[in-house]
Amino acid sequence: MDSTAVRAGREPFHWRTAIAYKTKEKIVVRGYDLNDLTGTIGFAEMAYLVWRGELPPPDHGRMLDAILVSMAEHAFSPSSAASRFITSGGVPLHVGVAGGMLAIGSLHGTADRPAELFKGAVDRMQREHLNLQDAAREMVGEIRRAGGRLPGFHHPQHIEDPRTARLLDLSDRLGVSGQHVAMAKAIEAATEPFWGRRIYLNGPGAVGAICLDMGFDTELIKGVFLLSRTVSLVAHTYEEARREKGWRGSANASITQPLDLSLQRPEFYDGPPDRSLPRDRRGGR
Amino acid sequence: MDSTAVRAGREPFHWRTAIAYKTKEKIVVRGYDLNDLTGTIGFAEMAYLVWRGELPPPDHGRMLDAILVSMAEHAFSPSSAASRFITSGGVPLHVGVAGGMLAIGSLHGTADRPAELFKGAVDRMQREHLNLQDAAREMVGEIRRAGGRLPGFHHPQHIEDPRTARLLDLSDRLGVSGQHVAMAKAIEAATEPFWGRRIYLNGPGAVGAICLDMGFDTELIKGVFLLSRTVSLVAHTYEEARREKGWRGSANASITQPLDLSLQRPEFYDGPPDRSLPRDRRGGR
Amino acid sequence: MDSTAVRAGREPFHWRTAIAYKTKEKIVVRGYDLNDLTGTIGFAEMAYLVWRGELPPPDHGRMLDAILVSMAEHAFSPSSAASRFITSGGVPLHVGVAGGMLAIGSLHGTADRPAELFKGAVDRMQREHLNLQDAAREMVGEIRRAGGRLPGFHHPQHIEDPRTARLLDLSDRLGVSGQHVAMAKAIEAATEPFWGRRIYLNGPGAVGAICLDMGFDTELIKGVFLLSRTVSLVAHTYEEARREKGWRGSANASITQPLDLSLQRPEFYDGPPDRSLPRDRRGGR
Amino acid sequence: MDSTAVRAGREPFHWRTAIAYKTKEKIVVRGYDLNDLTGTIGFAEMAYLVWRGELPPPDHGRMLDAILVSMAEHAFSPSSAASRFITSGGVPLHVGVAGGMLAIGSLHGTADRPAELFKGAVDRMQREHLNLQDAAREMVGEIRRAGGRLPGFHHPQHIEDPRTARLLDLSDRLGVSGQHVAMAKAIEAATEPFWGRRIYLNGPGAVGAICLDMGFDTELIKGVFLLSRTVSLVAHTYEEARREKGWRGSANASITQPLDLSLQRPEFYDGPPDRSLPRDRRGGR
Repeated sequence: MDSTAVRAGREPFHWRTAIAYKTKEKIVVRGYDLNDLTGTIGFAEMAYLVWRGELPPPDHGRMLDAILVSMAEHAFSPSSAASRFITSGGVPLHVGVAGGMLAIGSLHGTADRPAELFKGAVDRMQREHLNLQDAAREMVGEIRRAGGRLPGFHHPQHIEDPRTARLLDLSDRLGVSGQHVAMAKAIEAATEPFWGRRIYLNGPGAVGAICLDMGFDTELIKGVFLLSRTVSLVAHTYEEARREKGWRGSANASITQPLDLSLQRPEFYDGPPDRSLPRDRRGGR
Repeated sequence: MDSTAVRAGREPFHWRTAIAYKTKEKIVVRGYDLNDLTGTIGFAEMAYLVWRGELPPPDHGRMLDAILVSMAEHAFSPSSAASRFITSGGVPLHVGVAGGMLAIGSLHGTADRPAELFKGAVDRMQREHLNLQDAAREMVGEIRRAGGRLPGFHHPQHIEDPRTARLLDLSDRLGVSGQHVAMAKAIEAATEPFWGRRIYLNGPGAVGAICLDMGFDTELIKGVFLLSRTVSLVAHTYEEARREKGWRGSANASITQPLDLSLQRPEFYDGPPDRSLPRDRRGGR
Repeated sequence: MDSTAVRAGREPFHWRTAIAYKTKEKIVVRGYDLNDLTGTIGFAEMAYLVWRGELPPPDHGRMLDAILVSMAEHAFSPSSAASRFITSGGVPLHVGVAGGMLAIGSLHGTADRPAELFKGAVDRMQREHLNLQDAAREMVGEIRRAGGRLPGFHHPQHIEDPRTARLLDLSDRLGVSGQHVAMAKAIEAATEPFWGRRIYLNGPGAVGAICLDMGFDTELIKGVFLLSRTVSLVAHTYEEARREKGWRGSANASITQPLDLSLQRPEFYDGPPDRSLPRDRRGGR
Repeated sequence: MDSTAVRAGREPFHWRTAIAYKTKEKIVVRGYDLNDLTGTIGFAEMAYLVWRGELPPPDHGRMLDAILVSMAEHAFSPSSAASRFITSGGVPLHVGVAGGMLAIGSLHGTADRPAELFKGAVDRMQREHLNLQDAAREMVGEIRRAGGRLPGFHHPQHIEDPRTARLLDLSDRLGVSGQHVAMAKAIEAATEPFWGRRIYLNGPGAVGAICLDMGFDTELIKGVFLLSRTVSLVAHTYEEARREKGWRGSANASITQPLDLSLQRPEFYDGPPDRSLPRDRRGGR
């Protein structure tokens, strides 16, 4: 069977991929024997290789690993809620997980949309020979005047997302930070005049900027978030199936945003008490 | 609002979790501040912590990392095919990925079903005071006589799954292998008399046994496979969207199993040529 | 490409179907030209034809139409909730609808599981030459003693599901009711001695019995519910996207079952006030 | 619990809907008791009521019923293929159906996108006081010059979609056709000068125009297609589970578009032979 045949007037929809192939004896991923990778590179490096086609430089590998940890769990959100409601209908684990993932759309886990913003701003800066602050100010001003929102900025629950500073610090220390991280910081600074207060870069926004500086294509950046958040969806689906009785329903309830996020131990949480990492694990890499 | 209130005759369906909570200033996962984990532990360790509630011992962390790499990509399968067909309908990346994940049911990525088999066999061995080989032989004999299949054994494409030996070797060297790995090996040996040939433990089967020896609950083992294979689904979805023209259809075609898997470079593959890892990355950890 | 080729040792995974085919000029569904069906038969009859392979007898067509109306909307449930949470993540309509459908598992819209119960009871009645009441009593007694639940019976919100009497009355009047409907009624009567009160046949349970008496296979009965409930999921998804601001979240709330379902107009509802059908539409067919 | 409470600075995410509510004794849909609707109105009318909030005028009810029949089955497409691949991974029926629905994106079942085109063209016609043909010609010319595609026109398999003429004829006879149907026809006529041949209005395009003339909002038009096509997805999922052995895979195959659609009975079809409706069912309503 010739997979490259082109019939008169019709191109074949054939299977083709540059990702991997398998034979009876081996599985080859981007040219590397899978067994050479197994136990040699880490899972974050494997994701980078499968998606980008090449092994990451060490700093990229560590940065991606940190990003995947940072985005892996965020308590309740539309996706963990969706996973729980779906699980309560009596379904296998993978259906609860996949169902929760369906919620990670244009308003959730949007590291890709801020990436488009930063990319556009850097492109304009270069094209119009502007300096960083002016390019940032112009971009922010246009969006503000058009009544639009800045994707990647603000978090309704945290206001100042605690994940951002940690990710940017790692990015700087690993030498990953480049033009897009600089632009993200400049855009944040530029918000004060226009909104009367600082609108902070949020976690997914930081992820967008850092991944651009690692050469990721904007659409692939969404995949980074999906992989990371799958950890959470598995956990919430599994917990729902084990602890709750099924058939979550409601007819007359309010679901409100947490009113006072200064609570150290919100009522709904019954997990381990606050604790520090063991001494031999502390500190970054 | 009191989340623990029990109304007369009705238990509240309330939100409760032992996984994580967030406040305005921090995100706490199983008791640890997320920022203490970010850049400190790896993504595989993070998955272990979120799912199991505790940080993994170092050998468990490395083993899980290796498992996640090993299961991360397998070229074409029902899930990568589903992702591609869904993507061809014109959907955002996360929908293609989640859609592919829906295919990972009871016949695909089944590391959980072999785990149930191994667990049952080990339980019986202990209950009936049998030795390993006898327990394996009894279990296999019963299944064979009932005309059933051995979950976690055989691979239609590989016959002898190349991933298995590598995973079991790592498991032995890291000191993870225990009763369930021993039982999986014994069951494989026991197949020869009953089938007239050896039915080999496949990759997901090895994952099931190894995860049991790391104390994973059988249902959670499915989650290990889901997280791993998400890497592949992101890659295939992304590639389909970029390379193909949309609206995959067929009306009159055969999709056949590969007949001759000894091909080194199947026709459909146009990725990097075979290559070895760089010298500084070779060898396990 | 020869779609019927059988290679040595391997059956082709080929596309094959008895449902429909298309040519350049026509679409043929179970042998009928689609344009002959369009505008001639109703959508419920079309569903019956596509699923069963034959046009329904008139009474079956009317009964299925009534069932599809009866199950089409039920305010809040795990599936409409899942649709809303997914939609709130910013997704296209079809993703919200499909995501909600994922919740319709073994604990939701289970017309298929009661069907299995009724089928098993009727089979036993015939095999063991029992009368209806005795067969029902035996089946109920076994389940009660084993601590199991009766699928298709009870509704946590309605107690006595208002849909059941209407569906059974239509089934009787249309001449559809047969052995399985009789068995469902007998099982309901048999619950009183065992539970101390009557456990009422619910709507999906009635659907299961009626569909069996129309010759549906149990697994296909689930499909009846899925088609019907899709109406609701489209409505809830569409309404959520238009009215709500996105990113539904919660961290500290109780979702409780309605405590007092005697409320005529629950607080959450702001749709049309109660009204009757216009005079020219009243009464059944 | 007060569902209308507005806390300082935060709007409650509460449940609210205008679609339906339920009490212990009844289920009320858009103000009507569900039991008054069951057995009285048809399923297409029910869909219209649930989605639009009002019962349809009789001609609208019949037109929607015809549309739902026309779009209910189309043999192989990205969605039925996705349903089959997902089912082959071993999943419950509802997962196969929902998974197939995920494929119905911006390139599949797009009745909504042509609707946006027709709406835009009619709006412009009115705003700029153009006649029908001129407005059509302008719209088509712009799209052609921009290298874009006309959504709702052409079908790669049929060229001239057989469903279109039947639907437009019914629409005319039922008195539903209005400005948008007229615009769709005018746009089709306008394609000849620009493309050198007529690009025919396809089935989903006709559905888009007709639904606009019934007052449907463009996004809801997608829901019409989803409901209709669910019939097919149930059938293909059910058939795949019953007939095929599971784990559809491929590694080295071409899936081609049918090359010669003049075949009366494509090889893959093994359903009933071509037949006519019984005498007592022929002819439209």
